Amino acid sequence: MTRTRTPGDALRVAVSTVIFSLRRGVDGERPRVVLPLVRRTRDPYEGLWALPGGWLDEDENLEEAASRTLAETTTLAPSYLEQLYAFGDVDRSPSRVVSIVYWALVREDVSLGSEQHNVAWFDTENLPALAFDHAHIIDYALWRLRNKVGYSRIAHGLLPEAFTLAELREVYEAILGRRLDPANFRRQVENSDTLIPTDEFRTGSHRPARLYHYNHEVELADRGPLPQRRTAKD
Amino acid sequence: MTRTRTPGDALRVAVSTVIFSLRRGVDGERPRVVLPLVRRTRDPYEGLWALPGGWLDEDENLEEAASRTLAETTTLAPSYLEQLYAFGDVDRSPSRVVSIVYWALVREDVSLGSEQHNVAWFDTENLPALAFDHAHIIDYALWRLRNKVGYSRIAHGLLPEAFTLAELREVYEAILGRRLDPANFRRQVENSDTLIPTDEFRTGSHRPARLYHYNHEVELADRGPLPQRRTAKD
Repeated sequence: MTRTRTPGDALRVAVSTVIFSLRRGVDGERPRVVLPLVRRTRDPYEGLWALPGGWLDEDENLEEAASRTLAETTTLAPSYLEQLYAFGDVDRSPSRVVSIVYWALVREDVSLGSEQHNVAWFDTENLPALAFDHAHIIDYALWRLRNKVGYSRIAHGLLPEAFTLAELREVYEAILGRRLDPANFRRQVENSDTLIPTDEFRTGSHRPARLYHYNHEVELADRGPLPQRRTAKD
Repeated sequence: MTRTRTPGDALRVAVSTVIFSLRRGVDGERPRVVLPLVRRTRDPYEGLWALPGGWLDEDENLEEAASRTLAETTTLAPSYLEQLYAFGDVDRSPSRVVSIVYWALVREDVSLGSEQHNVAWFDTENLPALAFDHAHIIDYALWRLRNKVGYSRIAHGLLPEAFTLAELREVYEAILGRRLDPANFRRQVENSDTLIPTDEFRTGSHRPARLYHYNHEVELADRGPLPQRRTAKD
């Protein structure tokens, strides 16, 4: 039943993370979903861009490795972190590497940084040439993000603590890649138990818009029997 | 960014599979979801039951390893196979093992076999003591199965080629653990494009019931950008 073969040490485990955030343009321009990539400084694929990641340490859990990777790349704590998929095709890398890939959301209002050396943020609709199977991995992560935004509250993981309904709608629009009817959208979210209205308003060139908080009593997504993890609420 | 540490060879990769099938009792008894387990013949956890699995071969893809495991355990080809999750907590095994876990469906009408030595099928509601974190893994697989049955066609992966609407409803009931209203259920599935009525009828102690086929043009579930795999259609 179980093969009694001595496992080769040629097989290595890496952890990579697809980190999504939102970047808003000037007034009137729709926000875009962005992600950080790291430029490779050695072979294979030297000079190409790749997902942030590294080897799994013997003494760290998978999710810890993803969090470490994320902190090293962005110096940020994610508002949401979830395992995406394990990619392990024999030919995906010159040596045999199984990559456990996570995906994460980082709030739009935290500074995307002081771009570190060899790290840059890219519009998901305009990606550079990517190393390994990372273009395929990002495709799959975007598919998961678009699906999941429809049956969970993860859109809030990209928003600051206080936001207007229009800002929330724009997050959905950026992820789904299409416009939503403002009146319908307002009706749907106002009937949910996830929004807490405040007495503050966003003022500016438009008519004042009420600010809302997310109800942190409600998890961003149902993880079932997987352990709930601590996320940055600040 | 990327740690430049030499990866230790103490970290090993295993592939395990949660294989669900259906076992129908005598007339009137509701069908039950069952899965095969393998009794461990050596330490750790000697004598306890575990998910079928083994070490990942250097020259096989993850899904190939899952299929191999499945064939070795059940001698069956699955009607559905999907990656469940990668479990890699440091303390989940005495040595450091990352397990890439798949889950699969096997049609109820294929013989669950000539139980092989140290392999037995168990009712998912009445499992024995399990090795490692396998009880937790099965909990998570059952949660995925219950969720996914609501937004995909995977219930058909447990049915034989020809089935009645009552038999289809009983699959849903076995997975969800509750009764469904027969008239409502009939109305919902008759409006889907996944059922092909035949001119044959199941006869017996009840009034004759029409037999249906599944429309194999429709995938059992949407895999997004992941490659579609070949499944057993026979």
